[in-house]
Amino acid sequence: MDYFQESLRIHKEKKGKLAMVSKVPLVTRDDLSVAYTPGVAAVSLAIAKDKSAVYEYTGKGNTVAIVTDGSAVLGLGNIGPEAALPVMEGKAVIFKEFADIDAFPLCLATQDTEEIIRIVKNIAPGIGAVNLEDISAPRCFEIEERLQDIGIPVFHDDQHGTAVVVLAGIMNAAKAVGKNLHELSVVLSGAGAAGIAVTKLLSCIGADENTCTPVRDIIVCDSKGIISKDRADLNEIKKDIASRTNVSDKRGTIADALVGADVLIGVSAPGVITEDMIRSMAPKAIVFTLANPVPEILPHLAKEAGAAVIATGRSDFPNQVNNALAYPGIFKGALLARALHITPAMKQAAARALAAFISEPSTENILPALTDKRVAQNIAEAVYKAARA
Amino acid sequence: MDYFQESLRIHKEKKGKLAMVSKVPLVTRDDLSVAYTPGVAAVSLAIAKDKSAVYEYTGKGNTVAIVTDGSAVLGLGNIGPEAALPVMEGKAVIFKEFADIDAFPLCLATQDTEEIIRIVKNIAPGIGAVNLEDISAPRCFEIEERLQDIGIPVFHDDQHGTAVVVLAGIMNAAKAVGKNLHELSVVLSGAGAAGIAVTKLLSCIGADENTCTPVRDIIVCDSKGIISKDRADLNEIKKDIASRTNVSDKRGTIADALVGADVLIGVSAPGVITEDMIRSMAPKAIVFTLANPVPEILPHLAKEAGAAVIATGRSDFPNQVNNALAYPGIFKGALLARALHITPAMKQAAARALAAFISEPSTENILPALTDKRVAQNIAEAVYKAARA
Repeated sequence: MDYFQESLRIHKEKKGKLAMVSKVPLVTRDDLSVAYTPGVAAVSLAIAKDKSAVYEYTGKGNTVAIVTDGSAVLGLGNIGPEAALPVMEGKAVIFKEFADIDAFPLCLATQDTEEIIRIVKNIAPGIGAVNLEDISAPRCFEIEERLQDIGIPVFHDDQHGTAVVVLAGIMNAAKAVGKNLHELSVVLSGAGAAGIAVTKLLSCIGADENTCTPVRDIIVCDSKGIISKDRADLNEIKKDIASRTNVSDKRGTIADALVGADVLIGVSAPGVITEDMIRSMAPKAIVFTLANPVPEILPHLAKEAGAAVIATGRSDFPNQVNNALAYPGIFKGALLARALHITPAMKQAAARALAAFISEPSTENILPALTDKRVAQNIAEAVYKAARA
Repeated sequence: MDYFQESLRIHKEKKGKLAMVSKVPLVTRDDLSVAYTPGVAAVSLAIAKDKSAVYEYTGKGNTVAIVTDGSAVLGLGNIGPEAALPVMEGKAVIFKEFADIDAFPLCLATQDTEEIIRIVKNIAPGIGAVNLEDISAPRCFEIEERLQDIGIPVFHDDQHGTAVVVLAGIMNAAKAVGKNLHELSVVLSGAGAAGIAVTKLLSCIGADENTCTPVRDIIVCDSKGIISKDRADLNEIKKDIASRTNVSDKRGTIADALVGADVLIGVSAPGVITEDMIRSMAPKAIVFTLANPVPEILPHLAKEAGAAVIATGRSDFPNQVNNALAYPGIFKGALLARALHITPAMKQAAARALAAFISEPSTENILPALTDKRVAQNIAEAVYKAARA
């Protein structure tokens, strides 16, 4: 199937993918008097008296706003809010089908950090959580961080959804090749939204050290090479990463970083990884080449160069790493728990629940299929428990 | 039926009234590849290339954001955005059931005029129109006016939806008592959002004088009495009204205004109209007593005092004036025409289409039932034609 042609066709035929529907009948005059005026006044008064009753009487607690500014859409870059809408509609229908969450897109005409923060703060009363989506780095970090105390969870899926699925995949890939997760040497290609979040989750940053054992040997590379403390060109985010990673204080290019490494996690750009680099890695190398739609190195080339486990972001290769595996369940769990934040412990719990779906991981089978609707349910339960703990 | 108890019960049982649903299947891997990545990239690229394609490939053109700040909810006043949510959900499901429009509520945590204007401007890329709702006067006037050039229609329903239904009702009430609409002497009780809009629509303000014959004898009263040019306490909106109405330059109270009047339109507060005032009106008086849920004068008292036609906002009396009769069709017509504004001509067309639903108006039957789903369709067609004209 030509997914691109078929996608154009079905979007044109249906005029988008998301529709609203009434949960109550609206046929008789009585129906209208109950759903709308005068009956609804009683509900409004009950909430005016006790604001928390909004969770009991409305859809707030099951509603997610998917907020984007269109600045980093898929791998397509800054294509604007209108062009982002079909992607956000896609996220919304996945929310519905996989976790029965009612989500709607908000595609913003501004890319100003302060403005986006104000908008999200101001729409909070009627929604249960916010999924920040396809907002470019480094603005995405500040926007998310400054929205952590608005009374509902705000979660940038490009960071944490990706990180959760990558962690789950690495857990099972390590099992498949008989290595210990916490002893792996990991190299990241890419220090954008996903790269930073993967690094933090693998390093247990913000998590309870009693329950989270970090991967200690992580090297992060950006387009200039290895991120090390001596580099003068680092922004605050990368300085923080430099201080928390690269324990052996390596310098140089990504090729230098990969020599003897157990794991490569590519969240960067097509073509930046060569077969020689893969060949230089440790035996039974794990290669996640997640640039989308064109990966850092094509899977068959990575395989020929000796990689034991290969994962991509694509549906046409084995081991698909896609945040759709994680975000519906993570949000569902957070909403059910009425959590104020989605904490590192909740993300760790989500990754463990996702990994546990594959009872005997093999090199070609480290993650469940995207179509498996039990996944979100299991993740939701794990996230709910972690939120309550 | 106790609408209040039943409304509380059903809201609690259903946790709100609005749900989202997918228009495309999401079962197989192919389904996901078409609705989401990688297929959706083709749709995003098509829109990035030609922004107007967003109307072809997404739900934008059929989506309405219902925006409130919770400052003037029903007759309940400034009860806040959370308490406003059940009302907005009610509007959204009526949009769906009566006009197949996909609408969602945005309940804002700010009542700052500038902030609300910025938010609405910034959410425009992903939606087809904005329904401003339950925002108090006079802020509602400025907010709506300053949002007229954002590329999609912005319509404050408390003003214009009410005005359209009132005009349709007055058209048919005049027929029922054998008076000529344009020769009526009309008194408004209330100079808030609805009162101002009704006055403007009856006066053909902004409409083409060739197609719109105004009601020339209108007196508007606020809580201080008749709005006349000599009053020193008028804000800009009321000064404008003073200059356009009250051609005989009357002074005094609403009781003075009503002596000999053909029509009273009450959009004010419970109890401000007495039986004596009704008795002082012209024979075959038309009394719209629309304060909700408790009208300016109870219908049976108005009847005893001699009113020939009585309309209320309530479902338990004849002649219910409710904007739900108008707004689904008005928005549908505007969306279908891809109109940039909802003009006075479109509102006039909506009122005529609504009035035309009753072929032989009588004193007890001036407006169709709220439950009649053909109404929105007919209004939509009329508004579409007016938009295209």
